[in-house]
Amino acid sequence: MLLITNEDIQGMLKRNDLDLAEVNRRIERTYQDLGHGRAVYSPKHQISAPLPSQFHRDGFLDETFKVGTLQGLVESSGYFALRMKLDIQYRLATTHEKYCIEPGMFCGLVLLVDLRNAEPIALMNDGLIQHLRVGATDAVAADYMARRDAEVLGIYGSGGMARSHAQTIACVRKLRKIKVYSPTRDHRETFAAEMEEELGIEVRAVETPEELPLDCDIIAECTDAIIPVLTDRCVMSGVHITGSGGHFTPGAMDRLDAVVLHQAVSGSTVFNYTTGPQGAEMGGGMRFRGGKIGANGDVEPSVHIPDDERARHPGVRGTLAEMVTGVFPGREGEREANYFFNDCGTGIQFATIAGQVYETARALGDVHEIPTDLLTQTIRD
Amino acid sequence: MLLITNEDIQGMLKRNDLDLAEVNRRIERTYQDLGHGRAVYSPKHQISAPLPSQFHRDGFLDETFKVGTLQGLVESSGYFALRMKLDIQYRLATTHEKYCIEPGMFCGLVLLVDLRNAEPIALMNDGLIQHLRVGATDAVAADYMARRDAEVLGIYGSGGMARSHAQTIACVRKLRKIKVYSPTRDHRETFAAEMEEELGIEVRAVETPEELPLDCDIIAECTDAIIPVLTDRCVMSGVHITGSGGHFTPGAMDRLDAVVLHQAVSGSTVFNYTTGPQGAEMGGGMRFRGGKIGANGDVEPSVHIPDDERARHPGVRGTLAEMVTGVFPGREGEREANYFFNDCGTGIQFATIAGQVYETARALGDVHEIPTDLLTQTIRD
Repeated sequence: MLLITNEDIQGMLKRNDLDLAEVNRRIERTYQDLGHGRAVYSPKHQISAPLPSQFHRDGFLDETFKVGTLQGLVESSGYFALRMKLDIQYRLATTHEKYCIEPGMFCGLVLLVDLRNAEPIALMNDGLIQHLRVGATDAVAADYMARRDAEVLGIYGSGGMARSHAQTIACVRKLRKIKVYSPTRDHRETFAAEMEEELGIEVRAVETPEELPLDCDIIAECTDAIIPVLTDRCVMSGVHITGSGGHFTPGAMDRLDAVVLHQAVSGSTVFNYTTGPQGAEMGGGMRFRGGKIGANGDVEPSVHIPDDERARHPGVRGTLAEMVTGVFPGREGEREANYFFNDCGTGIQFATIAGQVYETARALGDVHEIPTDLLTQTIRD
Repeated sequence: MLLITNEDIQGMLKRNDLDLAEVNRRIERTYQDLGHGRAVYSPKHQISAPLPSQFHRDGFLDETFKVGTLQGLVESSGYFALRMKLDIQYRLATTHEKYCIEPGMFCGLVLLVDLRNAEPIALMNDGLIQHLRVGATDAVAADYMARRDAEVLGIYGSGGMARSHAQTIACVRKLRKIKVYSPTRDHRETFAAEMEEELGIEVRAVETPEELPLDCDIIAECTDAIIPVLTDRCVMSGVHITGSGGHFTPGAMDRLDAVVLHQAVSGSTVFNYTTGPQGAEMGGGMRFRGGKIGANGDVEPSVHIPDDERARHPGVRGTLAEMVTGVFPGREGEREANYFFNDCGTGIQFATIAGQVYETARALGDVHEIPTDLLTQTIRD
């Protein structure tokens, strides 16, 4: 079994060993598989418990142990993946934070399994795969929904997610220019310099968020900002807007002609299991109540079924699986302003991208290995 | 992170480094935690897909890729565990079989996480832990439900599960004798010789299943046999019957005065996610239908809610969590014939026992390690 770190994957990306156009194609096939009943995933599963008081850190509020899992398998890719995040979540005065082991460290892992023989073949950091899965899914949506002649991409944000979006969207449209806005000057200018070097096209940092949308054909929102960045100015004739945030200012969404959803409601439903009678603060400002454990040990989740204004928009056409299997077209006319709502992740994205990372690592050699015979057994259970 | 194999755990058991009385006590506390809302687990989750035809093996029928997961956390133990089984399931002419990688090999893994800081601290084979979790849970139930003066234990079966039951039940009652029946003479005689040596009490192999119950105070069913072994002869005045099978001959269950269930219905409900419109053969002779994937990618599980005659017995008192928190007594009178129905496993059992195995391994040293810094990351997701 291979042990593949973010540094290994970073190396593959730097040297172009991991083909991003192929990442996009595989993600497209994955959602075609899903639409045809040849891929399947389970909704997000979260188990949590308030941290016992003796382990509390000074100033950290509402500390909660939480494990979140996603699972999925994709027949065309040939892989199953289990992705797990291990977190202590907490609040500071005004922000939601998390860590694993100690503040500043995080742990997300992908266990990759071969569909042909159920062999566990790799354990990986999930950080870069996480950026790629969102970027590639948005790129596939953009390939269907952006104008054919789209050539200017605007990005809100300058972190890893912004980077993956520049890389993957550049594979589906012949971009002439990328514009980037991020509140910290140094961040946006570093991003612009590095991406200009990497992609060989003009990448320009703009000074204000208002300047960004002007002359953009595609706008990608790649920021954690809770303050809405998608204003009326963004929802222009002919634009395609994408990204996982979907933070529109009031009224801006009304200007959209069409919306496509990443997944159906059942897929984005979250099952929360937590100790205590009251549920727990789950991070992100949402408090899920309703889950309970009876005195008889009866364990009921609190089920968080999304009811999102973005998914209730009158212009919703359907899901990504439907769009990539031809149920409806991605764009109707040159003037349509449309939006892809890329909500929470799926296990099938991780199966597909981790599978390609694994194949690349195998071809390259030079990664850590865990002897598989330590993981298998002769006991049948 | 430690990598702990069945061989490591076997060594701990052989040298008495892993204290089985302590295993029992921790499992008892785990179900007390559950009854008080301080432990939580999610029901079994299974994701499957029929094996693509090009990977089929000759003579193997209905080959299916399947991953099953259990998750749970226990505040008193201080651990969370994710247990996953990776299987190719198939049928031969008359039996259900499975393997991982190749026939004769299996893969079940437990990922153990520290509740205090979310650190992944161990990855383990699940085979011996699986035997211990069933044995210890049955031993806790026996401690409440068997007569105080019980001294003869009868066991159907001579495999790893029979062994763990002899070991754990010997911790809760002062046994004078163990009787064992298994269809293969060599198996039952080897078991008797080895356990007599290990436990220092008489262990006698009997020639026929009918001989077993005579003079037994506790009967443990530790066999995969589909043919019922629990006959009228087993349901005697004053007896306690336990085990995960619960295969009673017709009418024998009517003679039981009382039944206690391992868990409430919500805990033993199974969520199945599978490709294709029809569901799939899931092994064990059960076919779960109803799950579906819509053309829009809408993923619905088929939910298998148990409706078992053993759980519908008129003598059902409640669950293990209720019994160990004092909601009802384990036994009413010396003549009561009672039964503990230990149905499918829970993540909290794995969290507790894997936690104790981990502590033992840490104290002993000398196990494989995976550098934890390969598993953590600075990317926040």
